[in-house]
Amino acid sequence: MTVTREEFIRALQERGARIADFLNQDKYRLSFHPEVLREAVYSYLNRPAKRMRPGILLFACGAVSGAEERAIPAAAAVEVYHTWTLVHDDIIDNDAKRRGFPTVHEQFRSLALNEGYSEREAIDFGRNIAILAGDLQHGWSVQLLRESAELGVGRQVVLDLIALLADLTKGLLEGEALDVLFAKRNIAELSENEILRMLELKTGALYEYAGIAGASIGLNKTVAEDPVIKAIGSFARKCGVAFQLQDDILGIVGDEKRLGKSVDSDIREGKRTVILRHAFENAGADERKYLLKWLGNPAATEENINKIKAILTEYNGIEYARDLAVRVVDQAVEEIKFLPDSRYKELLLAWAGYVADREY
Amino acid sequence: MTVTREEFIRALQERGARIADFLNQDKYRLSFHPEVLREAVYSYLNRPAKRMRPGILLFACGAVSGAEERAIPAAAAVEVYHTWTLVHDDIIDNDAKRRGFPTVHEQFRSLALNEGYSEREAIDFGRNIAILAGDLQHGWSVQLLRESAELGVGRQVVLDLIALLADLTKGLLEGEALDVLFAKRNIAELSENEILRMLELKTGALYEYAGIAGASIGLNKTVAEDPVIKAIGSFARKCGVAFQLQDDILGIVGDEKRLGKSVDSDIREGKRTVILRHAFENAGADERKYLLKWLGNPAATEENINKIKAILTEYNGIEYARDLAVRVVDQAVEEIKFLPDSRYKELLLAWAGYVADREY
Repeated sequence: MTVTREEFIRALQERGARIADFLNQDKYRLSFHPEVLREAVYSYLNRPAKRMRPGILLFACGAVSGAEERAIPAAAAVEVYHTWTLVHDDIIDNDAKRRGFPTVHEQFRSLALNEGYSEREAIDFGRNIAILAGDLQHGWSVQLLRESAELGVGRQVVLDLIALLADLTKGLLEGEALDVLFAKRNIAELSENEILRMLELKTGALYEYAGIAGASIGLNKTVAEDPVIKAIGSFARKCGVAFQLQDDILGIVGDEKRLGKSVDSDIREGKRTVILRHAFENAGADERKYLLKWLGNPAATEENINKIKAILTEYNGIEYARDLAVRVVDQAVEEIKFLPDSRYKELLLAWAGYVADREY
Repeated sequence: MTVTREEFIRALQERGARIADFLNQDKYRLSFHPEVLREAVYSYLNRPAKRMRPGILLFACGAVSGAEERAIPAAAAVEVYHTWTLVHDDIIDNDAKRRGFPTVHEQFRSLALNEGYSEREAIDFGRNIAILAGDLQHGWSVQLLRESAELGVGRQVVLDLIALLADLTKGLLEGEALDVLFAKRNIAELSENEILRMLELKTGALYEYAGIAGASIGLNKTVAEDPVIKAIGSFARKCGVAFQLQDDILGIVGDEKRLGKSVDSDIREGKRTVILRHAFENAGADERKYLLKWLGNPAATEENINKIKAILTEYNGIEYARDLAVRVVDQAVEEIKFLPDSRYKELLLAWAGYVADREY
């Protein structure tokens, strides 16, 4: 009764569509004014995406025999929460594309240009709308989470999940800040543990939250009341880290069209990844010099970028990161072995398999 | 037993100091990493300020015979919430000063320059730290509000206040967006009601929230459970709008050193105020032309700015806004007349007097 990759993808898509419908209800849409902000708030939410986090939340709820229905507002909350971090992160990284379309600040910069704003004014306008849209989504996500209380989830459970979300924000933004600060640090002095901790904060923690929220709502218990909740959270955190490791790999060998965002930007920004660290450690003096000179260098040409990619591959950076992802997912799977068999458990394991690119 | 202006200011300062001490506890300070974000989060919070909003929240709590002690986390939440909106708003307005010191994005731009970043990188770094700091404060404010539940405030009361805070965010950011969009609109086509609605959203609503939260916690009841809560909220909203009207006046005739922020910036940005609208309506064709040409014009000289100020004063813009503020506060005072006499009620009335610059 193993869930195949195709079945997992289909199950995820089904939940993704439900969450999108839920979020597009008039009672939410029409609560945002003026129209330009409403459009900005819904921009990423209505683009094709995997909706991994709400899916995992719902599967976690089911895996402890909870009713998925009751976890829908929380699943929507996690998706909206994730979205605000993307909107603000895209400003921070000066990224131009997200999910195959312009980032929010770019989208509204173009709009302003078309309306006759000067170049300078249009850049500011795009940035301003993106800041406000992310802030709105942040507030909205808390509101959605709170709605769980109206579906019979205990008030203390909801209050604890709200507190945990604020803790999450501290960790997540610490991760983002480290990501920015690391890009300025000498690669030779950055340890793998530092990079992994950054990944846990920046990506793992939100998956952990999705696992915890789903299980907590499913059991209608606070985290302190049942160790199962923490175990599922830990499973999700580890898979999330592995997912980010794979994402970093795609940032080097991936296909821009399929990803919907520009590859190479990690290299152009000098992003500190496990791949880079490992390759740098194993590279010879000449290649090290080359990496130090061209990583994060705005003057880098396509030739420089391609040479960097070749170095990262040749010195086993890609292979090492892939192996590490598998090891992390192996540990993750151990965390939820004890769960009773169910289709939901199989869906969680199928996710682990998807992330590690193997079967569990 | 009327509270004098001096007593009101002293009572406010006392609460402000308590809130500052509360927020500077290690359990909060040390929860922010890395250090650069911690500094950014505390930057405005540790500058001299009136701390009007937490003060009003605490007085509202007392005015319904509630214990101030129980409202401290909520009062701190309102101050932190207000601060995140300032940090993000300062990016949006490209403002350089706040409370007598550089704005967060400016502060960290300078820091980056000193550490050898390029001009372009330093601007991005300052902006990024300010975005993240505001986001952290936003999350923190929800967390502080939630802490009220640990001091015996009913869970449903807390959950309702959390929901209300998210509603507030929608209105407040709508107000900010309108402020930005209005600056692009023809003054002749903007009605006073549109401007007043923008003020209600951008400034009035957070004061209303402070009044509601204080009264709701003081009574340990939800808004739906006792009409007194709404009445106090309405009083606070009106005083908040009047306060903003006075602030707009100071933006034209105020003293830069005493205000701690640059005056003239409202004129340089072409901000649509009641003052401007009224003066424009009464001005002759030549003055109108002058206003349309130089308001929000980046090429405006000091001479242009001074001439604009003279036009706004000559055509009674200042006087009109001052009268309007008094009328609004008169209405506000009616809202809380029914409250039993107490020092807290007197403090609220002293605030009204402070805002309208007269006695109640």
